[in-house]
Amino acid sequence: MKHIDIKKILNNNEFIDKEVVVCGWIKSIRNSKNVCFIELNDGTSFKNLQLVVEKDQFPKEEINNLKIGSSVMMKGTIVKSLRDNQSVELKINNFKVLGNCPSDYPIQKKKQNLETLREMPHLRVRTNTFNALFRVRGVLSKAIHDYFQENGYTYVNPPIITSSMCEGAGDLFRLTTLDIDEISKNKYNPDIDKDDFFGRKVSLSVSGQLEAEAMIYGLNRVYTFAPSFRADNSNTKKHLAEFWIIEPEAAFTNIEEIKEDVKGIFKYVITRVLKECPEEIAFFTKYYDHNLTDKLLKSLETDFVDLDYTDAIRILKESMKDFEYPISWGNGLKAEHIKYLTEEIFKKPIFINNSPKEIKPFYIKVNDDEKTVASSDLYFPEIGDIIGASEKESDYDKLLNRIRELGMDENDYKWYLEIRKYGSIPHSGFGLGLERLLMYTTGIENIRDTIPFPRTKVKKFIM
Amino acid sequence: MKHIDIKKILNNNEFIDKEVVVCGWIKSIRNSKNVCFIELNDGTSFKNLQLVVEKDQFPKEEINNLKIGSSVMMKGTIVKSLRDNQSVELKINNFKVLGNCPSDYPIQKKKQNLETLREMPHLRVRTNTFNALFRVRGVLSKAIHDYFQENGYTYVNPPIITSSMCEGAGDLFRLTTLDIDEISKNKYNPDIDKDDFFGRKVSLSVSGQLEAEAMIYGLNRVYTFAPSFRADNSNTKKHLAEFWIIEPEAAFTNIEEIKEDVKGIFKYVITRVLKECPEEIAFFTKYYDHNLTDKLLKSLETDFVDLDYTDAIRILKESMKDFEYPISWGNGLKAEHIKYLTEEIFKKPIFINNSPKEIKPFYIKVNDDEKTVASSDLYFPEIGDIIGASEKESDYDKLLNRIRELGMDENDYKWYLEIRKYGSIPHSGFGLGLERLLMYTTGIENIRDTIPFPRTKVKKFIM
Repeated sequence: MKHIDIKKILNNNEFIDKEVVVCGWIKSIRNSKNVCFIELNDGTSFKNLQLVVEKDQFPKEEINNLKIGSSVMMKGTIVKSLRDNQSVELKINNFKVLGNCPSDYPIQKKKQNLETLREMPHLRVRTNTFNALFRVRGVLSKAIHDYFQENGYTYVNPPIITSSMCEGAGDLFRLTTLDIDEISKNKYNPDIDKDDFFGRKVSLSVSGQLEAEAMIYGLNRVYTFAPSFRADNSNTKKHLAEFWIIEPEAAFTNIEEIKEDVKGIFKYVITRVLKECPEEIAFFTKYYDHNLTDKLLKSLETDFVDLDYTDAIRILKESMKDFEYPISWGNGLKAEHIKYLTEEIFKKPIFINNSPKEIKPFYIKVNDDEKTVASSDLYFPEIGDIIGASEKESDYDKLLNRIRELGMDENDYKWYLEIRKYGSIPHSGFGLGLERLLMYTTGIENIRDTIPFPRTKVKKFIM
Repeated sequence: MKHIDIKKILNNNEFIDKEVVVCGWIKSIRNSKNVCFIELNDGTSFKNLQLVVEKDQFPKEEINNLKIGSSVMMKGTIVKSLRDNQSVELKINNFKVLGNCPSDYPIQKKKQNLETLREMPHLRVRTNTFNALFRVRGVLSKAIHDYFQENGYTYVNPPIITSSMCEGAGDLFRLTTLDIDEISKNKYNPDIDKDDFFGRKVSLSVSGQLEAEAMIYGLNRVYTFAPSFRADNSNTKKHLAEFWIIEPEAAFTNIEEIKEDVKGIFKYVITRVLKECPEEIAFFTKYYDHNLTDKLLKSLETDFVDLDYTDAIRILKESMKDFEYPISWGNGLKAEHIKYLTEEIFKKPIFINNSPKEIKPFYIKVNDDEKTVASSDLYFPEIGDIIGASEKESDYDKLLNRIRELGMDENDYKWYLEIRKYGSIPHSGFGLGLERLLMYTTGIENIRDTIPFPRTKVKKFIM
C-alpha cells in the first residue's frame, strides 16, 4: 500500500473512515494510561497529523521504540478528531520504525537558540522555525517566477564566472585552478594568470544585470534568479558572502514604469505567502514578531512614499536629530537615516528617487540636472533596502564619457557599450534580494537564518 | 500613448482598426515603388509584426533612416493583412527612430555561422536562432519549476561555495581572496589557506544533491535549480565549465518510484514547449533538424526501455560490433555503446538500471547482490545521458563502510552521515542537465549555443 502525503489527508475530507498509510517523523509523544498520542510530520505540510495508538493493541517494547525524531510508517484509519471537529486523526492498527533516533539527537522539542542551530545547518530544517522559513522561501521563490512569467518576462541565466565587473562593488572572489601551495613554493612568475583555467583572471559574479541588459535586445523583458557573491568583510546581520538575487530588466521602459513592477511584485508575493503559508506566518507572528501579520496585511494596502533624495536630505536636516553620520547632500543615506524616515516620519515603505550620481553605479542614466541619476531605491521599516531600481544610460556617447570620467578601463566595457551602439533603446530594471525579502516576510532578524547553508566571513566554516 | 507588446497584437483580434504604438527593432525592409514593408520584432514574440509605410506620407530622408537593426517607435492603425487573412499588419502614420544602427552591425540578415556568433554572446540573442533558443530555454525552465511545484516539491538553494565534494567528480574551481601574484613573490607559507576568506580551502559546488538530501528531512520533496561547475579539460560539444542542473530529491521514495518523476517531467516539459513555442520548434525543424517535431511528438508517446546494465553488456557483446572501447562487465558504457543501443537496437530512450557499484558514486544504495547499485540513467538517441537517477543509501553503517572502503575521509562526510543517524529514511532523486535537455528539444548540436554566455576551457575568454 503506497503511503499518502499528510498534506492531502489534512486538506481533504474524503479520507475519513478510509484506511491509509503515512510516513513521517515523530515530533511529539503524549502518553495517557491507555493511549499514546503522536504528532507526525512528513514535511509535506507545516501542520502535523495526530496519531492515536491504543497501547493494548501492541507489544510494550514496540510502543517504547517510538521516539521523537524517529521515522516511521503508520497504517490506520482516518477518523474525525474527538477534540476538534475541524480536524482528523489517524487511528493506528499497524506500524513500523524506519529509522531510529538515538538519544543524542541535537534537535530538541523546546525552542532552541537560532545561533546554536546555525552550527548544524544540515539538521536545523527539522525544527519548526527553519521548516517554516524554508517553506516560505520556497513559496516566495515560486511567486517571484510566476509574477515575472505572467508579466511577459523570460527567465535567463547570465554567467556566474565572469571577468566583467558590474559596479566595482565590494571585493570579489577569484576563481582558480592554480595550486596556490605550489605557487608559494616556486619562484616568481609574473605571467601566472596565463596558466589559469581560462588563461586569465576571472571571478564570481556580483550581478548578472549587465548581461541581462544584453538579453532584452532579443527577449524584451528578462529576469535572472541566481546566486551572487561578495567577498566583503561585513560581518553583520544583513550580509552574506553568498546570496540570491532577482534582476529583471525591461525594454522600452523608463524608471517610472519599472517602479510599477517593483510595487507589483512586492504586493504579489506577499499576497501569495499570506494565502499559501497561513500556518507559517501565524507561527512567526506568535514566536518572532507579534506585529508580523498586521504588518504584511497593511503593506498590501499602503501606498509607497515617493521621496526625492534631495527632499530626504532636507527632511533629515530639518529634523535636528543627532545622527552619527552627518547629513550632507552627496553622501549616501545610512541605516540610521533610513530608519528615521521609514519608522519615525513616514511609517511606510519609501522610494528614494534621483540620488546623486557620485553614489550610484556608472550605468544609470544621468538626469537633466547633470547631478542626479534615474534611480529609485525601496526602503522598508526595520529591514532597510530590499529593491534598487534604475533606468540605464542608453546613449552610447554619454555612457562612454561616464566610464572615462570615472577612470574605468573602457576596454573592459567594450561589449557593454556595443549593446548601445546598435539600435539602442531606453530600458530599466531592478535588483531584489531574496534573503532580505524573506526577513521582511517572516520577521526573522539575522540573514544567516534565511538561507539553508549560510556563507559568511567567520572563522568556523560550517559544512 | 503607451506602446503595446507585439505579442498581444498578434494574438488578439480586438486591436483591428484601432490605433496603437509599438516599439521594436527592424528585422527586414522590403521596398516597392510606393510602399515600404518592414518586419518589426520587439522581443515579446518570436514572430514579427509587418509594418506598412506609405512613402509619400513621409519625407524621403526619414524613410531612408529606417535601417535593419535600428530601434523605432511606430504609431499607426492595425488592419487585416491583405495577403494573409489570418494575420494583421500595422499601417504607419507616424514614427520615430530611437536608436540608429551603424553599417558595421555584425548581425546579418542571412543565416550566420554559429561559431562566428559565439564570438559575440552579447549580440547573438538578436539573431533568429539564439532568440528562439533562449525563448525555449525560458519556457523549459518555467515548465521544470511548474512540474515540481505541482508535484509537491519545494524549491531550495544549496550552497554554491562549498568544502564538501559530492562525487570526487572532475576538477574543482577553487575560490580565493588571496593575491596569487603576491604569494608568488613571497616566501613559502605552508599555512597560506588559513589566510583565505573562509580560513580554509573552498571550491565551487559540482552538485547540490548532498545538501538537498538534508533538506527533505524537513520538506519531504525538494528540488534545486542552480549553476554547477566543473574545471574539467573536456573540450567537447557536450561539456561546459558552467552549466545549470536541476536536482530533485524525494523522501520515502525508492528508485522505481522516482523513475515515475523522471518520465513525468520529461513528458511534461516537452508538452509545454510544443504548446508554448510552436514557431520556435517549427524554425528549428526547418533550419536545424528536419526530424525534430516528429521526434518530440514521438517521444511523448513512446515508452522508455528498461534495461539492466548487465543485460546491456550482454546485448553489446552479442552484437559482435567492433567497438573502440572493449565491452566488459564493470566498465562504464561509452558514447559508442549508448549510441548503438539507443539508435540501432531500441531506437528509443533507454533507462540503464543497476550499474556496477565501482562506476557509481559512494552514496547510492548497494543492491542485495553487493555488486550493483540502485541507479538508473536515462539515455536518449543522439544526445546521450540527460538524467541520472538513484536511490540513496539510508543505512548509516553501510554508508560509513562504503566511505571507508573507498578510502574517503569520513570526517569530510560527518554531517552527511549524521542525516542518516537520526530518523533515517529511504529516499531517491535525480539530476537533470538543463543545457542537454535544451539540445534535445531544439536539435542544436553544440552545448555552447544553449547558454547565453558559455564558459569553456578555451584560450580566448569572451566577454
